[in-house]
Amino acid sequence: MRNKGIPTMDVMGYAAQSATDALAPFSFERRDPRHDDVVVDILYCGVCHTDLHLARNHGGFTTYPLVPGHEIVGRVREVGDAVSRFKVGDMVGVGCMVDSCQQCKPCLKGWEQDCAEGPTFTYASIDRHDGTPTCGGYSDTVVVTENFVLALPDGLDPAGAAPLLCAGITTWSPLHRWNVGEGSKVAVIGLGGLGHMALKLARALGADVTLFTRSSGKEEDAFRIGVNHVVLSSDPAQMAVVAGRFDVIIDTVPYDHDVNPYMPTLTLEGVLVLVGYMGPLGTPVNAGGVVRGRRAITGSFIGGVPETQRMLDFCGKHGIVSDVEIIPIQQINEAYERMLRSDVKYRFVIDIASLKS
Amino acid sequence: MRNKGIPTMDVMGYAAQSATDALAPFSFERRDPRHDDVVVDILYCGVCHTDLHLARNHGGFTTYPLVPGHEIVGRVREVGDAVSRFKVGDMVGVGCMVDSCQQCKPCLKGWEQDCAEGPTFTYASIDRHDGTPTCGGYSDTVVVTENFVLALPDGLDPAGAAPLLCAGITTWSPLHRWNVGEGSKVAVIGLGGLGHMALKLARALGADVTLFTRSSGKEEDAFRIGVNHVVLSSDPAQMAVVAGRFDVIIDTVPYDHDVNPYMPTLTLEGVLVLVGYMGPLGTPVNAGGVVRGRRAITGSFIGGVPETQRMLDFCGKHGIVSDVEIIPIQQINEAYERMLRSDVKYRFVIDIASLKS
Repeated sequence: MRNKGIPTMDVMGYAAQSATDALAPFSFERRDPRHDDVVVDILYCGVCHTDLHLARNHGGFTTYPLVPGHEIVGRVREVGDAVSRFKVGDMVGVGCMVDSCQQCKPCLKGWEQDCAEGPTFTYASIDRHDGTPTCGGYSDTVVVTENFVLALPDGLDPAGAAPLLCAGITTWSPLHRWNVGEGSKVAVIGLGGLGHMALKLARALGADVTLFTRSSGKEEDAFRIGVNHVVLSSDPAQMAVVAGRFDVIIDTVPYDHDVNPYMPTLTLEGVLVLVGYMGPLGTPVNAGGVVRGRRAITGSFIGGVPETQRMLDFCGKHGIVSDVEIIPIQQINEAYERMLRSDVKYRFVIDIASLKS
Repeated sequence: MRNKGIPTMDVMGYAAQSATDALAPFSFERRDPRHDDVVVDILYCGVCHTDLHLARNHGGFTTYPLVPGHEIVGRVREVGDAVSRFKVGDMVGVGCMVDSCQQCKPCLKGWEQDCAEGPTFTYASIDRHDGTPTCGGYSDTVVVTENFVLALPDGLDPAGAAPLLCAGITTWSPLHRWNVGEGSKVAVIGLGGLGHMALKLARALGADVTLFTRSSGKEEDAFRIGVNHVVLSSDPAQMAVVAGRFDVIIDTVPYDHDVNPYMPTLTLEGVLVLVGYMGPLGTPVNAGGVVRGRRAITGSFIGGVPETQRMLDFCGKHGIVSDVEIIPIQQINEAYERMLRSDVKYRFVIDIASLKS
């Protein structure tokens, strides 16, 4: 007899025990599945900058132990008796959220990221039913209500698909909201985990895509992933050439930066969408840059469950995955250091099988 | 025999001769009408903050003498032989622009304010055909290509209608662009020339309208012009009550200010539209305020000729005019001083008949 919803399932993972400790092996318990839960044997977990920020308590609100990871791909091991959409053996994904109130207006619209009560995040959050802290995908198993489990399309490489669950949906959502399609002109600031996904997705949607980069030498890589043009944003002459060009700019820069130089490169009524940074923009934003030409500075934050599924289905159809470097979990601390040096093309993904080694 | 396009028509007006001189009587010449020109006997001219800024060279680029005024209402005195839409005796309006290239993509869309070559403004601009400086509506006559002349609907008070040509279209354009209509929730920051027009127009469009004000005591006036709610933006408790409420905020504040406190009062995907200020926003804009909820900071700049006509027609149908204080032109310098103290409800309009007294 199973103890529904009671944390009695032994799980192996990696956790940070403080802001300064290296991540290390950590045993913990997850709940036995509730009626609506799916138990997933994790195969791969992508490594997002958020993992590093929270592990090291950059926001000042982390509680420990912390098991990071919200770009999860795995196989269904078990399902609760009320689960209808998944069965044992299915390949599935779990992203940044594992629950929400399911009753507010945003939730009913499929905007769970905007849940009026706040969504339950995959880690560093509190389960809304039993009050236990959530633990992420740097572990061998995850237990999630089926409402937050995504079906992984056949034929997608599971390791490359893992980053779609965060980097993919984060860039897909604004591309979709701003109607990017055949003939759109899209620019992406930054060629990292988010940036390279934005470029691939925009290209597959039929857009003409441009990479804005501050450092030369990115051209070869950019062209390899399908970018049409590369513009050195530190060169005013190159910036002048693209004045008035872009319908949408996806700004993936993860730190404070000056958005003003990009505004004149937008077409009339064009939008710059911040997806990588949530803090104060220290360089004063020039109001004239939005008043003239009715341009907009907006943002986007992950995406809802239904649109995440649509994104995965689109990626399945077009064979889009992230460029990844697969690592054993024992290298996670080194991977963090390399991420801080932007030394990854373009996403680390943990092979969870390494947990057993 | 007339000298088509040659400046031989004597005109009386008021001009600034330097940044520090008071405006004073000034005689100058306008061109005899070209084939496509309409000659307008000016009856009323609204007084916009831009007039004051340019007269006093706040931007550092004014050339003198300067004849301000771009909220012009008058009666057609004469038309060029190719003019088809206006005839002698018609009541007409002239706004902030008197010409544009008429060939670029924005012009062809009716977005003359975005003309790729830059529009010709009603004053402090250079006529694109003869190179002479343009002079505004603080004068008894204006000569304008018919493409930039607006038909004034019957029944609108001509003095109250004058500010529609700038304050009206400046606030109408973003309300229209962001689909304000029956059931929309709109807030307006600031109860001045622009603000009171935004409130009246949004109300007539069917929106529930809220005034954000930093000072108490505005309620009576606000309710008189149809505002549904008044929120003291300096009171965090009142701001919390309207969290997540507004589809659109029209921000008419004409100086640097902090937009961050208003962002959480927007609904998901809501927009804050700057219309009164073109400079740097000195208080760092919080990226999180646009990332969470996909909110946007955008702006709007006057409006095109076709939408200005639509706005005037709408105002004619709904009997909307500006609240004005009519002054003789001899009081213009005093009026500027009062504007600097926000001592006007809500727009000064010059009775141009006073020029002859």
